[in-house]
Order: sequence, then C-alpha cells, then structure tokens
Amino acid sequence: MDNDRLLRQIEFIVEIDKLKQVLRQNVVIGTSRNENDAEHSWHLAVMAILLSEYAAEKDIDVLRVVKMVLIHDLVEIDAGDTFCYDEKGQEDKEERERKAAKRLFDILPADQAREIRELWLEFEELKTPEARFAACLDRLQPLILNYNTRGHTWKKPGVTSEKVLKRNELLKDSAPLLWEYARQVIEDSIRKGYLKSIDKTSRHEV
Amino acid sequence: MDNDRLLRQIEFIVEIDKLKQVLRQNVVIGTSRNENDAEHSWHLAVMAILLSEYAAEKDIDVLRVVKMVLIHDLVEIDAGDTFCYDEKGQEDKEERERKAAKRLFDILPADQAREIRELWLEFEELKTPEARFAACLDRLQPLILNYNTRGHTWKKPGVTSEKVLKRNELLKDSAPLLWEYARQVIEDSIRKGYLKSIDKTSRHEV
Repeated sequence: MDNDRLLRQIEFIVEIDKLKQVLRQNVVIGTSRNENDAEHSWHLAVMAILLSEYAAEKDIDVLRVVKMVLIHDLVEIDAGDTFCYDEKGQEDKEERERKAAKRLFDILPADQAREIRELWLEFEELKTPEARFAACLDRLQPLILNYNTRGHTWKKPGVTSEKVLKRNELLKDSAPLLWEYARQVIEDSIRKGYLKSIDKTSRHEV
Repeated sequence: MDNDRLLRQIEFIVEIDKLKQVLRQNVVIGTSRNENDAEHSWHLAVMAILLSEYAAEKDIDVLRVVKMVLIHDLVEIDAGDTFCYDEKGQEDKEERERKAAKRLFDILPADQAREIRELWLEFEELKTPEARFAACLDRLQPLILNYNTRGHTWKKPGVTSEKVLKRNELLKDSAPLLWEYARQVIEDSIRKGYLKSIDKTSRHEV
C-alpha cells in the first residue's frame, strides 16, 4: 500500500485509540470506574443528535456539532484531562493543549488536519452557535452523570453548588430549557446532599 | 420540570450510559483491557468523518453514517456483544436484539424512537449506501485494532484468515481502497503470525 493519504489517516485512527485511556473525574453510572474521554465523546455525540432542538440559535448544523464533540478532547491524549474546578491546572492548560493539537492533527493529510484544527478552535473559543451548543452538552453530560452517581465528582474538595451553577451558566442563553433542567438538578442535588452550597455553610456558621 | 419530552430524552441518555459496560472481544491498543461498545462507537464515528471519501457510492450523507455508527450497538445493552465468529451465538441474536431495540428506543419520545429504530434497521439490513459504508467501518475498525495488538482476537479458537477475509468482503464493492488496505493487513498478519490460515495448515498437513 503506497497510498500516503490513506496511511496517514489510518495512523491517526490508531493514534487516537489512546483517548480510551484518558480518564475523567466522573465515574460510569453504577460502577466505581472512571469514565474515559472516548466514552464521554460518544455520549456527547448521541446527545447532540437527540437534543439539538433545544439550541437557542435555530438551524444549527448538527453534523458540525457532532464533529466538534467527537474531537474536542483529542488534545488530552498528550495534555491530560484538567479537572474543570482545578484552578492551578487551568493555568498552563492552553499551552499544553496547543502543542498536543499540533502533534496530533498534523498526522492527518493537510486538508483534514486543517479541518480538525479549525473545529477544535471553534469549540474552544465558543465562536459559533454550533460551538456554544457543543459546549453546553459538554457541561450537561457530567452534570447528568454526577446526579446519577450521588454527586461522585461534586464531593471532591473545592466543589460547591455555586461553582457548578457558574460552570453551567453557558446554558442560560444557548439552551434555556436545558439550563432550567440543570438548575433543577443542582437544587435537587443540594437537597439530597450530593452537592454542598457555600451559602448554606455560611448561614450555619452565623 | 414537567417537560415530558425532555425528561424522556434524559432518561434515554442515562440508560445508554450502560453501553460503556458492554465489552467487546478486542482490547484497547497497548493494554490488556477489553474495548467497550461506547469507545468502539466513538472510534467508528471519527472514522466516518475522516474516511467517507472512500465510499464507492458517491455523495453519501455523512451525518446519517455517523448517526448509524453511534447507535448501532445500543441493542447490546440488553442483548450483549455476540462475537462475529461465534456461530452458535448468531442463532438467536436477531430475536434478542429486536426485543432490546423495543425496550430501549421506546424510552424516547415517539418521533425520535422511530428515527433511531429506522436508523438501526437500515444499518442491520445494509439497505442504503450509508448503511453499507457504516458497516464497512464496523468491519475495518476491529481489523485495525487486531493488527495493532498482534492479532489479539484472531488468536481465539476458530478464527482463520479466510473467515476474517470473508467478514471484510463487504468492503470490496462498498469501499474498494479500504478493501485493498484490509487485504494487505490480513496478508501481513499471516506473515507475522497474528492470524493463521486454513490453507497453510492444510498444506502443512499434506
């Protein structure tokens, strides 16, 4: 086989198999096993198909959303998963991920490397309605998993309902009905003890 | 939240989290851990985006291919993964999967249940160019994984290069260049001892 184009595509497909080994903070429902980025990306892609009707900006390109969620975490193959509530980890995240994008995407033929890089940047910079909706799903999916695992990740140090609300705030304008759902899940989670609220703690201390 | 439509969609999204626990025969490259159906489906979806140019039938609807590969294994949540070279397991596979489709897809609102059921049947029956190309990817991905794990699954009892070739034959008409690649991988795998050939065994026996 001397088809350089196909061989580069296959090399990329083999390389990204590593995404199955990048672990996230949350666990798979009903298990104590951490979810990995490949499973997470699959879940988002199915959600994109089922929930696109809730995007505030109408007539979004669903294929574009699906492509973005499928590739949005590839850079973590080199850069690792940075916990969204880890402020220190966020500091050099951008630089680590930029390097990873260069190495990984350049395995592909130039036209596809460009397409995937542009999709990734579009997602990261929330540039378009599609990117904003994709990012909404990336917030909502871990919320759903946490709610269904008695707040597994929310019990880690430093996580409060205020931070979770803030992280999901993007939904308010980009997917109002999903935002309403997220707010109710958060309220119910506080009630059930899956998630603690700073406000409540302060009140008790007074 | 009294939005019945959204609540059914969320219930489905929670239910299909179980796909992350359905194990396949092959392992993730560089590990001894079995791949699961959610990871497999993600991998196929990325492949659909990168390799659609090789579909013999032109102008296929890539979003339709992606949707099919994302949902094609959901029925295995109830029916389990049936090893493609397990003839006994194949016997009641259809009945098991039909029941699973009914239970799972009917969690969704009626219009989406119908859409997902139709996509799944289209894939199963290889009805359209999109379904045939999706099925090609479903053959090619385990071949790539097996080649990169020294023939992990191919060493199981009853697997021969003839059976692997036959299973991949769909590629011949539906994606000729991918078929050429698959044939070369199979030949190289025989040479490297990842895969045994009946023909060779017979010749040795003579």
